Amino acid sequence: MELPLKGIIVLEFCQYLSGPSAGLRLADLGARVIKIERPEIGEAGRSLSIKNLWVGSDSLLFHTINRNKESYTANLKNAEELAAIKQLIKHAHIITHNFRPGVMEKSGLGYEAVKAINPGIIYAEVSGYGKNGPWKDLPGQDLLIQAISGLTYTTGNANQSPIPFGISIADMICGEHLVQGILASLIRKAKKGVGAHIEVSLLESLLDFQFELLTTYFASNKQPERSLINNGNPLLSAPYGIYQTKDGYIAIAMVNLLQLAEAIESDALAKAAVKNPFEYRDDIKQICADHLLTNTSQHWLNKLHAIDLWAIEVLDWQKLTTLPAYQQLQIEQVIAIDEQQKIITTRCPIRINGERLLSNKSAPLLGADTEKIKQEFQIA
Amino acid sequence: MELPLKGIIVLEFCQYLSGPSAGLRLADLGARVIKIERPEIGEAGRSLSIKNLWVGSDSLLFHTINRNKESYTANLKNAEELAAIKQLIKHAHIITHNFRPGVMEKSGLGYEAVKAINPGIIYAEVSGYGKNGPWKDLPGQDLLIQAISGLTYTTGNANQSPIPFGISIADMICGEHLVQGILASLIRKAKKGVGAHIEVSLLESLLDFQFELLTTYFASNKQPERSLINNGNPLLSAPYGIYQTKDGYIAIAMVNLLQLAEAIESDALAKAAVKNPFEYRDDIKQICADHLLTNTSQHWLNKLHAIDLWAIEVLDWQKLTTLPAYQQLQIEQVIAIDEQQKIITTRCPIRINGERLLSNKSAPLLGADTEKIKQEFQIA
Repeated sequence: MELPLKGIIVLEFCQYLSGPSAGLRLADLGARVIKIERPEIGEAGRSLSIKNLWVGSDSLLFHTINRNKESYTANLKNAEELAAIKQLIKHAHIITHNFRPGVMEKSGLGYEAVKAINPGIIYAEVSGYGKNGPWKDLPGQDLLIQAISGLTYTTGNANQSPIPFGISIADMICGEHLVQGILASLIRKAKKGVGAHIEVSLLESLLDFQFELLTTYFASNKQPERSLINNGNPLLSAPYGIYQTKDGYIAIAMVNLLQLAEAIESDALAKAAVKNPFEYRDDIKQICADHLLTNTSQHWLNKLHAIDLWAIEVLDWQKLTTLPAYQQLQIEQVIAIDEQQKIITTRCPIRINGERLLSNKSAPLLGADTEKIKQEFQIA
Repeated sequence: MELPLKGIIVLEFCQYLSGPSAGLRLADLGARVIKIERPEIGEAGRSLSIKNLWVGSDSLLFHTINRNKESYTANLKNAEELAAIKQLIKHAHIITHNFRPGVMEKSGLGYEAVKAINPGIIYAEVSGYGKNGPWKDLPGQDLLIQAISGLTYTTGNANQSPIPFGISIADMICGEHLVQGILASLIRKAKKGVGAHIEVSLLESLLDFQFELLTTYFASNKQPERSLINNGNPLLSAPYGIYQTKDGYIAIAMVNLLQLAEAIESDALAKAAVKNPFEYRDDIKQICADHLLTNTSQHWLNKLHAIDLWAIEVLDWQKLTTLPAYQQLQIEQVIAIDEQQKIITTRCPIRINGERLLSNKSAPLLGADTEKIKQEFQIA
């Protein structure tokens, strides 16, 4: 199958996660993504290691995010090297960057300058808090964006601190939006021949991500409250949440309370089931929590599934990855770093015409493709 | 500005959040999105209300997710009405659905059947757990997918239960991927004239969302552990997390421990700063937590910002929405339901050529556009 973005060239002036995760998706969909990096040090993510996990001289995380890309090094402060980049820009379809507002402009590579070189370019940039206003120069870091966005009051229970998501949600969701803006612009370009300037920010993306809750907030003027125990979603009624059993945890989604009471044989719940399940969710959840502790996960799931109630066992990766239902997804792919080393990571989650999109090309060594690219595009 | 997807027609056979959120983005980017709904009842999301918030006969949430769309009603079990839908399909560029595997096929609207009617169609579908394997018929519900994906062990602290994200992350992220698959296919279609069959699933999307942690897991074979207190991200060292102060909460991201010790004047932290900040993160976080309780958020932020350490106040929406930095983003938009009623929601987070993408068209009444669409496309 011919990948949908075959022939598209992306120059990625990005670091860490938000911008590079967008480049990763574009690469998996068939684009040629060239990372433009500083000589010697390279992208900052190369040296950000987790638990001291390295693949050669680069961190495992860098490898995870930058598989299937090329690397071209240039010192943008050197006039000759900057001129070479400008030659390269003539051949590109897309430029991405996630530097703080003003940095690319100072290097002579702001949108207006790039557009003068290549009028059809799609220039796509990520900022932390938007490019104007009092916060524009703050560090665009995931946890900080979570903290100011209100998101940390959606998770955990009402008597707990605000709790951040344990995954870089602002970076990830903003990277998804960047891809969407780029792809939509490519469609317009195919029809109209015009380029585009795409702007997203971590904060706006994270606010949009909360659109269900925010719309509710705007209508009611009250921050949706987390339940006192077993919160699953501050907008939802009892029993929605995760419950401890005698030997593990189960999740219970939207279910009819009377049916639930009957399935788990709880008289207390049957009595409470007449109450409003949103207004009295703490009381009802407490009844469920006490009762479900008295037997095993499998016991309860058998009862619940017998009458098609929405419940499931809570799994960690140790258990999940052993299950046939996981394995048939074939979500893992192996990337060979060299003859000795390989890493396992996830593949692109999108299937096209029944095919999974795989790539076994590892992240590039710093500057690995500079000479080849210069020759290819006859850059002096 | 001409929106990038102008002229593209989407038929949305979707309910609740994952599929409809993709349709919302396509509509905001300029596509014409027609919801195909059952007569009388309509999409299931119309009657899923939160806190009893309604806009006319439809829930506020339905309005939030389905602004800027049209509604066409048809009973797919009625041969004539199905025939009309097939006529409509000839004019469409994209079909989306998020029914359980087999449902659209039973209605005679599976990919192969639709392709026979319109060979260039982009047919994009969402399942819960993939379309094959032992889980394919389980309910594709957000909390259940979170529970089995391992995600709930990333958030909260090590001695707590697994904790779900308080927002429908599986639905949301899968909707983003659906949009990407569709847009990439439109680009290929513009070049090659071929349609595409796009498949995503809530589970695969949520696994890919965890790709940083999963790659680390595959390399180490250990589920990344949440810290015992103030977990921000199971992969990151102390002090990364949210801390209570005398009068509120602050978030502290990656910082040098010695600099932090100096800024907050903690001798205990200065001593502990020589330890490995990942291995001893619980001890180090406890020292920070105890110390930060002794003064106000503003006091600490002044100290931290004076030497450019990454920290910020934790905000709820009540506070956030009053700040000029929030207001200048202009993330809110007003949607007029009729002359009396309006709702406030968020806009599309992507800006194109400096413009925000706004739409004041409210969600359609059930079947509001059926007759108009029949006439327009001369459907008998």
